[in-house]
Amino acid sequence: MNLLLLEPEEIDREARAVVGGARASHVASVLRLAAGDLLAAGIVDGPRGRARVVEVTRERLVLDVSELREQPTPARQGIDLLLALPRPKVLKRLFAPLACLGVDRVMLTNAARVERFYFDTHVLDPSFVRERLIEGLSQARDTRLPRVSIHRSFRRLVEDELAIEAGTRSVLADERLAEAGPSLRSVLRDGGPADRLLIAVGPEGGWVDFERQLLEGRGLVGFRLGERTLRSDLACLLAVGLGRDFLSEPS
Amino acid sequence: MNLLLLEPEEIDREARAVVGGARASHVASVLRLAAGDLLAAGIVDGPRGRARVVEVTRERLVLDVSELREQPTPARQGIDLLLALPRPKVLKRLFAPLACLGVDRVMLTNAARVERFYFDTHVLDPSFVRERLIEGLSQARDTRLPRVSIHRSFRRLVEDELAIEAGTRSVLADERLAEAGPSLRSVLRDGGPADRLLIAVGPEGGWVDFERQLLEGRGLVGFRLGERTLRSDLACLLAVGLGRDFLSEPS
Repeated sequence: MNLLLLEPEEIDREARAVVGGARASHVASVLRLAAGDLLAAGIVDGPRGRARVVEVTRERLVLDVSELREQPTPARQGIDLLLALPRPKVLKRLFAPLACLGVDRVMLTNAARVERFYFDTHVLDPSFVRERLIEGLSQARDTRLPRVSIHRSFRRLVEDELAIEAGTRSVLADERLAEAGPSLRSVLRDGGPADRLLIAVGPEGGWVDFERQLLEGRGLVGFRLGERTLRSDLACLLAVGLGRDFLSEPS
Repeated sequence: MNLLLLEPEEIDREARAVVGGARASHVASVLRLAAGDLLAAGIVDGPRGRARVVEVTRERLVLDVSELREQPTPARQGIDLLLALPRPKVLKRLFAPLACLGVDRVMLTNAARVERFYFDTHVLDPSFVRERLIEGLSQARDTRLPRVSIHRSFRRLVEDELAIEAGTRSVLADERLAEAGPSLRSVLRDGGPADRLLIAVGPEGGWVDFERQLLEGRGLVGFRLGERTLRSDLACLLAVGLGRDFLSEPS
């Protein structure tokens, strides 16, 4: 826990927060702080800084957060992800690292090869998603939640809902391009400068032709995933990693 | 399961393998194969190809593997990882993706900021490690196990045991270099061509000076990890991803 994150509604009018659970026990048992000590804290989608411990036991932590101020949070490179909904076991491990990497938007979509029951999982409950995202933000010392949205119609998402800002490079992991086709890096490099990146990653088994064509119609360019078949969570994380690298140093 | 992997000792003299558990139930219930069908199979550190189903129920699968032949397995780029032993919860999730990415060697080492009890975990049991590695190989359709070794003395590892082949670029994730210092990509690009890569990733809290100096003494060059603090498993996977990208297309 590099940054203790508080929900806005946990703060009272006197700028005090009272929390229990993992956060209290972490401060008491791992950080071993006592009343009067300072620790790195932030408010979700709000300021961060140093909070003062007013009272702490393993069950209960009282913080004075009056000194938290708006200040720059760690850099985000401007990456949006359009991801065919993975199976719950894979999906649940993806929220924290994506938040940690500073992805701006995660659009989870239906696709021909997505099983319908994937949408029924508790892993998509807003409270579960938020908890995992906060875990990733806390690791990265960030306070700003990525936006996560769920789209049951792929066609409506791509044709109507998907807003692509000017200056965005849009790419599409294409499992048909094993060793042929351009790498992500060459697609990025050869497309000229860009401020933002939209990355689409398909389901296990890949996009069907209709889906691929719809994405290409919105300007997404395919890149090869390579000869080794990666699970979709690993493919996502590596694509975001390469994308961050490109946006932070385009040459 | 993109490739069903068999242990050499599971094959009898008539080139038959009898297996149960997850592999049998996967073939019966997910792939829904029947006697006479072919499926992608391989032998750990051996050949791969098509095996014929002789008999299958959810509990028991009999395969004829007489047609498996030595054939090229998916490309590996020649990456070795020197990793300060992470805590068990983090470590156990790392073996499968590292095998999936085709890492050649994983050297798990002690360091000043590694807790001693990390070495006592069942996650380091050879059978547990092997099972997780095979899961990753199976995903990538590979048969060749990465070599995993455990080093209780960092100094002995770096001074005596660490063999660095000619043509290897050696780099060191350095958490002191937040936004200053070169990126991994610029370290790779500016160092000229290389056939292989050795990547060192430190413990939570980073290497101590003595360790960093020892690694630099063996020619490892530091790269920045960036302003967002990544958990060591994510840092590893992204560094391997960038390394693969560089080795496959150095320009």
